[in-house]
Amino acid sequence: MSTSHAAHPDRLLPADPGTRDIARRLLAHVEDLPIISPHGHLDPAMFTADEPFPNPTALLISPDHYLTRVLHTAGVDLADLGVGGHEADPREAWRIFCAHWHLYAGTATGYWVEQEFEHVFQINPDRISADNADAIYDELTEILARPDFRPRALAEDFNLEVLATTDDPLDDLAHHKALAEDPTFTPRVLPTFRPDAYTKMYKPEFADNVTTLIEAAGDGQTGYQGYLAAMRNRRQYFLDHGATSSDHGTHNADTTPLSDAEAQRLLDKGMRGEATFEEALAFEANMTYRFAEMSQDDGLVMTLHPGVYRNHSTGAFQKFGADVGHDIPFQMEYTRSLQPMLSDFGENKDFHFVIFTIDETTFSREIAPLAGYYPSVYAGAPWWFIDEIDAMSRFRSYTTGTTGFSRYSGFIDDTRAYCSIPARHNTSRRVEAGYLARLVAEHRLTEDRAADIIVDLIDASPRRVFKL
Amino acid sequence: MSTSHAAHPDRLLPADPGTRDIARRLLAHVEDLPIISPHGHLDPAMFTADEPFPNPTALLISPDHYLTRVLHTAGVDLADLGVGGHEADPREAWRIFCAHWHLYAGTATGYWVEQEFEHVFQINPDRISADNADAIYDELTEILARPDFRPRALAEDFNLEVLATTDDPLDDLAHHKALAEDPTFTPRVLPTFRPDAYTKMYKPEFADNVTTLIEAAGDGQTGYQGYLAAMRNRRQYFLDHGATSSDHGTHNADTTPLSDAEAQRLLDKGMRGEATFEEALAFEANMTYRFAEMSQDDGLVMTLHPGVYRNHSTGAFQKFGADVGHDIPFQMEYTRSLQPMLSDFGENKDFHFVIFTIDETTFSREIAPLAGYYPSVYAGAPWWFIDEIDAMSRFRSYTTGTTGFSRYSGFIDDTRAYCSIPARHNTSRRVEAGYLARLVAEHRLTEDRAADIIVDLIDASPRRVFKL
Amino acid sequence: MSTSHAAHPDRLLPADPGTRDIARRLLAHVEDLPIISPHGHLDPAMFTADEPFPNPTALLISPDHYLTRVLHTAGVDLADLGVGGHEADPREAWRIFCAHWHLYAGTATGYWVEQEFEHVFQINPDRISADNADAIYDELTEILARPDFRPRALAEDFNLEVLATTDDPLDDLAHHKALAEDPTFTPRVLPTFRPDAYTKMYKPEFADNVTTLIEAAGDGQTGYQGYLAAMRNRRQYFLDHGATSSDHGTHNADTTPLSDAEAQRLLDKGMRGEATFEEALAFEANMTYRFAEMSQDDGLVMTLHPGVYRNHSTGAFQKFGADVGHDIPFQMEYTRSLQPMLSDFGENKDFHFVIFTIDETTFSREIAPLAGYYPSVYAGAPWWFIDEIDAMSRFRSYTTGTTGFSRYSGFIDDTRAYCSIPARHNTSRRVEAGYLARLVAEHRLTEDRAADIIVDLIDASPRRVFKL
Repeated sequence: MSTSHAAHPDRLLPADPGTRDIARRLLAHVEDLPIISPHGHLDPAMFTADEPFPNPTALLISPDHYLTRVLHTAGVDLADLGVGGHEADPREAWRIFCAHWHLYAGTATGYWVEQEFEHVFQINPDRISADNADAIYDELTEILARPDFRPRALAEDFNLEVLATTDDPLDDLAHHKALAEDPTFTPRVLPTFRPDAYTKMYKPEFADNVTTLIEAAGDGQTGYQGYLAAMRNRRQYFLDHGATSSDHGTHNADTTPLSDAEAQRLLDKGMRGEATFEEALAFEANMTYRFAEMSQDDGLVMTLHPGVYRNHSTGAFQKFGADVGHDIPFQMEYTRSLQPMLSDFGENKDFHFVIFTIDETTFSREIAPLAGYYPSVYAGAPWWFIDEIDAMSRFRSYTTGTTGFSRYSGFIDDTRAYCSIPARHNTSRRVEAGYLARLVAEHRLTEDRAADIIVDLIDASPRRVFKL
Repeated sequence: MSTSHAAHPDRLLPADPGTRDIARRLLAHVEDLPIISPHGHLDPAMFTADEPFPNPTALLISPDHYLTRVLHTAGVDLADLGVGGHEADPREAWRIFCAHWHLYAGTATGYWVEQEFEHVFQINPDRISADNADAIYDELTEILARPDFRPRALAEDFNLEVLATTDDPLDDLAHHKALAEDPTFTPRVLPTFRPDAYTKMYKPEFADNVTTLIEAAGDGQTGYQGYLAAMRNRRQYFLDHGATSSDHGTHNADTTPLSDAEAQRLLDKGMRGEATFEEALAFEANMTYRFAEMSQDDGLVMTLHPGVYRNHSTGAFQKFGADVGHDIPFQMEYTRSLQPMLSDFGENKDFHFVIFTIDETTFSREIAPLAGYYPSVYAGAPWWFIDEIDAMSRFRSYTTGTTGFSRYSGFIDDTRAYCSIPARHNTSRRVEAGYLARLVAEHRLTEDRAADIIVDLIDASPRRVFKL
Repeated sequence: MSTSHAAHPDRLLPADPGTRDIARRLLAHVEDLPIISPHGHLDPAMFTADEPFPNPTALLISPDHYLTRVLHTAGVDLADLGVGGHEADPREAWRIFCAHWHLYAGTATGYWVEQEFEHVFQINPDRISADNADAIYDELTEILARPDFRPRALAEDFNLEVLATTDDPLDDLAHHKALAEDPTFTPRVLPTFRPDAYTKMYKPEFADNVTTLIEAAGDGQTGYQGYLAAMRNRRQYFLDHGATSSDHGTHNADTTPLSDAEAQRLLDKGMRGEATFEEALAFEANMTYRFAEMSQDDGLVMTLHPGVYRNHSTGAFQKFGADVGHDIPFQMEYTRSLQPMLSDFGENKDFHFVIFTIDETTFSREIAPLAGYYPSVYAGAPWWFIDEIDAMSRFRSYTTGTTGFSRYSGFIDDTRAYCSIPARHNTSRRVEAGYLARLVAEHRLTEDRAADIIVDLIDASPRRVFKL
């Protein structure tokens, strides 16, 4: 059993003793509530198969680009960590990680890893070092072989109530169906409709993807009409399998609609691989508008997260593929970009539109004012680079004066790292407790109201916003 | 008499006990100083008529888009709140407000409302709820009928020394004249020259407005020369009626001047309704430059507040008109935009130019460096969405290291909500006390110096900057 | 001996008593470490000549635009302060400074001046006032005449270990050579290769500079090839004289390379004075790429600091020349701009590339993600307007969650004000101690780890990053 500093009951709470006392009491209202995760990147097959995790590296290192990019800054070759399908000796990768453990001090990832060690595996994270690498690897290997460390058992241990995955529109959702029908498995594992692979003409696989989509679900129609029909049909299929939201990772936030004729013209160019980048973005913007339009009918919650330069390092992309840590945010604009869509659909309170950003400058300037007027707009939790502890506090400070607490999406873990889920949600609960405690200490809220609010933020908000 | 948490003497002060003690002492130097409000949106006729406010809703809800937009996020129809001239049952609107009171927790507006209840009406704000809606409505109705709750009596109660209104260039300023000549009314109510309705070609009423202006005040000249003459004449008329400043709400901050010939050409297009948006902005930029040029001669302080997408929701604009809560900020640029004007006039220390922003990213990057060099440039108080408590603290932190305290405009309430004026000014005093207390606690200032500074910020700064 | 508040041992440390105790202990580990200054603007001739400073104004006021711009905001003519080579009575300038001393309250510059008075000159800064101006001037005059206040003696007193200057590529570096060969002088005074004067076609002196450069060092080649050869040769000359870095003050961060033919075409236009601003920027971007390319071979660390509108006030530039306080930052973009260069060279861990910014919005959005992936990229210390105390804290908060502490450049004083060097470095040490103490108080780090980290930040980081 561990007694590391990672187990301290006051971790992440404000240092001022009076404020900390309030924060402790507020945290107690929510620390044990079930986990609701309306957006993330786990594979549902993990739960249908329920097989033991193969080894510590495959579970904790290779798939987590938050973690591998830190090692990469120190000159570690991502191939040696098993990234991007490269073969690597898992024990050797583990040794590299342990030898570089000091680099994680102060990072969100380092904090989560400590929490996983402490609370999931009951290993004292203060032991992580080059010297202990093999011993810890062996201990973890033993732990992962135990039945109570298989995916389903962990889900129960994590108190996971809802977990949304992110899925291709043509996925048959067989795993989701199997889980929903399995009376021995309690958590709701819901699919999310993510059509990006079919809307980005600037990706080489676009034409093949669209051809397959229209053939599979276009109701026999061709071209843009077949394409729209296929999208509508597959959304319905997702709804029938429990989906409550669609997710859209666009380049920018533009939502300018095109006429059907213009959309058809661009689609034709895109299918021939002849669209310019500007034309591809115009088509993507039109589709963001069209997905919002579809939501008016079918009720899927819509989440948007633009503003990332994907695969910044060309050589690394060629060697390792996507999602390995060099997606770099850029400056975002929402006010003008969302105007066409919000002006048409924003006043509909049954339409739920969640804006995510990694450009935190947009919180006070654009997102809070939008979410503070439109009944449809919700401020998405700070996400990716800014689900870091200080940044989460800043989010509250940037938005609350304008929006209060009711326009918040609820916490989003957005993770590929299964064992980090409890730590991430717990972090959010502690940050909320600290922020609310400050408002109480500054006599801006009574502690009773703050207690109601923290329960609403953690439990009711995600259910309400994501129609769970 | 109320004993709500809103009456707590330490409200908004820092939680750390040592810092709070210093803040309390600093606050005591300024809490009872008179209110100087050099920019706002009240109607001076309120004071000449001095009639009782008709009902709580008409006073507190319908005209305050800060407050109604929060209800609108919850799906409330603005028509049911009497917004935009829509008829609404005032008691019913009041019930809606009370039933949604929990949404205001943590917002600046909620804080001001609590303070108004507590300190203006002596009603405990903790009582606000759906259940108490009718009772509070009746109490407020009774209070508003009392002679000591008429506009003039409240002005005295608020300790209002200076109040600037915002006025059309063709306003005859009869109310301002009457108030100035009335020996029974102490506060100075000053007009502000706001020519926006005559500079924006992209507004449908532009041509009619300009025609009227030139006919009324163009000295018999026509075209651009008549237009400039009319502006100069009306500025002088405002000066003769006590105005000390002109106010300019532009789209962006561009100040590129045009030749007279080019300005005439664009004006002609604008009068025919044929100007493109780009041409309209070029004309607006030229006029910002020209107003600065006029200030060199007539000495009017110039305030500029660009960067808002007005009437974002097209349908809502058609139904309710302007200023109902969906003006959304966008990203601003000042450095390049202001260069033509500041390069020509910025070195004149008798020219006072106040820059407002709602894009707080510009404070440390552009506004503080500009105000930290040019003798003419003052950093406008954080305003609109960012006159919120935490944002006001951030403003100090973003600017003070570069500008110190002498380049600050003084607090600006910018309000249409009369009864919120004391709360807003008191909020600012508390935020200043808290910020200065931290500098003292960190041994960056002596407490004696901090005491001098807070009096200067609250009392001397607005007088000095606005030439009062 | 002074006992001013500027001498308080807890200055700049957090106000919360528990956190302050931790900060004190952390500070003790680094407060007496030697000063490593890898980038600044002192003249090495100061140390070869080692003459007494002529008078207090020439030492402390005239060359420091941080300080003179504050006086300028109050309407002081920069000529009266001896700025830009204007003759001014030094005693009179000193009186002006003392009479305006209150304006510096809360500024970084004011804090540094207090520290200089307190710790370098042992004069109580609380005495600064119009009344004491002459007395202090006389005391300082006496002090500056003492042998222990000559440049070399002060360097020893400051515990200066490394000091980099910023030098023209054609500088013969004779002073650096003399200092390196002088066994009686301990500090390492290193040159820095700063080629800006030869890369900016939009400057009038460009053609003459380039002609001289190619003739001097182009290996007999002409045109673009001679130009590149001259750059390579001079870099080698700098390396041979101890340089470890090159410094690049560009307009923006663009790094798009040009073909040799296109570069030659633009160079020809630039030499004829016919290049447009866009063409000049394209050439500058190409050269940023080329300098990075040269670094792959010769190993010079590369620092980049774009994003400043130089000489904003045209009249002031004509009267006083450059670097007198009206260089104003503008909004920066790094993600797209650096992609061409980082995609080609960013994965090379032996290439050290330090990004500076004055646009602090880029820290969490762009710089931390870049420095958190690329082994070559380091986040430059907050610099110029944002080496202010609160801004330095924000830098830590914006970056650490993503990058940890290992991607930091080490503190950069970037100063022309010799006597401010100890105060600036001490400020940084106090800010780091305060930030780390908060992480310890929030149980995010153990105090032992924090102690290791602060020593690494202050001492090891600049040595490692700048290859000292």
